[in-house]
Amino acid sequence: MSIDGKTATDGISGPRVDYSRVFTQAIDRLHAEGRYRVFIDILRNKGAFPNARCFAGHNGPKPITVWCSNDYLAMGQHPKVIAAMEEALHDVGAGSGGTRNIGGNTHYHVDLEGELADLHGKEAALLFTSGYVSNEATLATLAKVLPGCIIFSDELNHASMIAGIRNSGCEKRVFRHNDLAHLEELLAAEDPAVPKLIAFESVYSMEGDIAPISAVCDLADRYNALTYCDEVHAVGMYGARGGGISERDDVAHRITILEGTLGKAFGVMGGYIAADRTIVDVIRSYAPGFIFTTSLSPVLVAGVLASVRHLKASSVERDGQQAAAAMLKAMLKDAGLPVMIGDTHIVPLMVGDPVKAKKISDVLLAEYGVYVQPINYPTVPRGTERLRFTPGPAHTEAMMRELTDALVEIWSRLDLRKAA
Amino acid sequence: MSIDGKTATDGISGPRVDYSRVFTQAIDRLHAEGRYRVFIDILRNKGAFPNARCFAGHNGPKPITVWCSNDYLAMGQHPKVIAAMEEALHDVGAGSGGTRNIGGNTHYHVDLEGELADLHGKEAALLFTSGYVSNEATLATLAKVLPGCIIFSDELNHASMIAGIRNSGCEKRVFRHNDLAHLEELLAAEDPAVPKLIAFESVYSMEGDIAPISAVCDLADRYNALTYCDEVHAVGMYGARGGGISERDDVAHRITILEGTLGKAFGVMGGYIAADRTIVDVIRSYAPGFIFTTSLSPVLVAGVLASVRHLKASSVERDGQQAAAAMLKAMLKDAGLPVMIGDTHIVPLMVGDPVKAKKISDVLLAEYGVYVQPINYPTVPRGTERLRFTPGPAHTEAMMRELTDALVEIWSRLDLRKAA
Repeated sequence: MSIDGKTATDGISGPRVDYSRVFTQAIDRLHAEGRYRVFIDILRNKGAFPNARCFAGHNGPKPITVWCSNDYLAMGQHPKVIAAMEEALHDVGAGSGGTRNIGGNTHYHVDLEGELADLHGKEAALLFTSGYVSNEATLATLAKVLPGCIIFSDELNHASMIAGIRNSGCEKRVFRHNDLAHLEELLAAEDPAVPKLIAFESVYSMEGDIAPISAVCDLADRYNALTYCDEVHAVGMYGARGGGISERDDVAHRITILEGTLGKAFGVMGGYIAADRTIVDVIRSYAPGFIFTTSLSPVLVAGVLASVRHLKASSVERDGQQAAAAMLKAMLKDAGLPVMIGDTHIVPLMVGDPVKAKKISDVLLAEYGVYVQPINYPTVPRGTERLRFTPGPAHTEAMMRELTDALVEIWSRLDLRKAA
Repeated sequence: MSIDGKTATDGISGPRVDYSRVFTQAIDRLHAEGRYRVFIDILRNKGAFPNARCFAGHNGPKPITVWCSNDYLAMGQHPKVIAAMEEALHDVGAGSGGTRNIGGNTHYHVDLEGELADLHGKEAALLFTSGYVSNEATLATLAKVLPGCIIFSDELNHASMIAGIRNSGCEKRVFRHNDLAHLEELLAAEDPAVPKLIAFESVYSMEGDIAPISAVCDLADRYNALTYCDEVHAVGMYGARGGGISERDDVAHRITILEGTLGKAFGVMGGYIAADRTIVDVIRSYAPGFIFTTSLSPVLVAGVLASVRHLKASSVERDGQQAAAAMLKAMLKDAGLPVMIGDTHIVPLMVGDPVKAKKISDVLLAEYGVYVQPINYPTVPRGTERLRFTPGPAHTEAMMRELTDALVEIWSRLDLRKAA
């Protein structure tokens, strides 16, 4: 069937659906709101992060500096990671060749799950093809295994958690962001005999703020609820061994299920959960998103193993990231730019308009060789569109000075609102 | 909250949920049904597929032959694929560092989408982190964009398609496997003004049979329905350039959306769709499972590019696979074993009991160094448990003879049912 609905000659009579029109209108809505997304075509230069080459709309690749990567600690170019991946590539080949159950369970997977369980002081861990899938599959499956379960979800939780909760079909109560009083009010209103799960993140990546994990666990104890904490923007970066905010705050043992990613600070790709052995076994045995999919390539898993082991022993990268974030925040603030000052490595700059955010980003790329993606709805609420910088240990003071000067010039040129 | 529910001291009164008991019971049910899954811990030997090392329960790794890999053409060890991955690893590093929209759109991704669109003769293609995610995200998003859409789904469709349909929240009609009369009956019963989508696979991987694509497209034309065809067990393996059954049957242009995987015949990891530009743009712009996830590692994408390009030009691997499948089917049949004779590269051997299927697999691994996973519920219906062999161009006649002799001995030892 061609989507314009014109190919049928022997079709049934009556009104016909014009599929083409429906699809075109869906795209037109995005253009009208100024939030149609154009992907920037780049290649990063290993050994020289955050430098990269940009391909779109130029005569040949143009050098740029990347300011919005989630490869927060530049582990994606770490010699140990690269060497481990190269070795695995030559030892066992490109892909796993199957699901975890059918031919795709490699020794690397088994080792990495042990390493991640150890990182969080949990009995077991389970790998997924992505952090998105780990959240979706775990939350959807948990709520199905627990009859009548109600999930209490922070209003700023990531789309993957929201998908898992929705796909579970269970009842959901949304509490105001990091608002313990509101969370308690919602918990207290429910039947004590009903299973409950509190789902939240440790670091909120678009705000750069941190959840009060210990106090959430106090409420979980009080109301007999399980806890699910997404640490994707914290693992590798916080705690003495990179165990995340839950390690830094010494509360990992109080969280029922910790979730993390292998594609941000660890620099590669994939996701995981860590929990008690029985819970991990339940997810392993019942989650379609885990069972029915080709397992992570052993090449990736080997790289992550090297990355996790390195960051357990080395704090140089974490210290470098924190220093870079503090320096950039100070520079932007001193320049009078509307930087959102939080407690984390994330540096958001509020714009409040999707068209202006895109314009700033376009000028930065075209005129200054600076790549930072505008963040718009649905990633953040409408009216809070922003730029989001992720300085890391590889961003130099000179790069920060260039970035700040460029922003000051653009802010003035476009007559944008400065800090209050 | 500890899962045994004992940590609260200041908790509220009343009955408390015993989470530990619920989780333990969920695992006990699997043991009771004989379908608790134990993953076999292996490493394949690049350059010597299907040979591998098995780690579980032995003193050091033991050599085995893998008979159940979905790396159907052994492209996971092809020198071009390995070389391309090594080059990308050293050029751009381990991971992409972001979502497609935020820093993770590499030139490799753009090139591969062009290559896949060309493979299927479509205007555009879109990459996902897995075939599972491509099915789930595309079907769920399509049905949401088309108000009132009804999806007509083959009863043997893969779990990922079922998840996408369920998560869309739309109406579903299930037709009997490859039954055109039943499909037409269901189509004719619905309002012509309602959007319709027929979702099916070209090769059903547990049966080894093939859908009548052309006839399904005739029905789609007649009833003004869109078509969604999952070709994961066909791409790379059928058609002059590896475009799948739709290329072999010259019907790709009649299918609205083709879906494929990069983790089976192409030997690496990931999934994709190919379709008209507007439909791809809609999925790209609206599917949470595409938007909110770190993109495929450029190392993987570089490997797939080499694999797809090679298989477009070379039929040696396809011919070798077909010859191996024909030879193994003939040997098993001549030996009086209950092989299911289909038209594809997949060779299922019916057992009909989960405990016996597991026992055969255990003996093959422990005594013969042959690895084939038993296939049980929910992957196949209860009572149709089976072994599933995937001979490829790297499986020799001597390996097939060893396998057949082993099976004959075990069939006799366990007094199993022979072919009718």
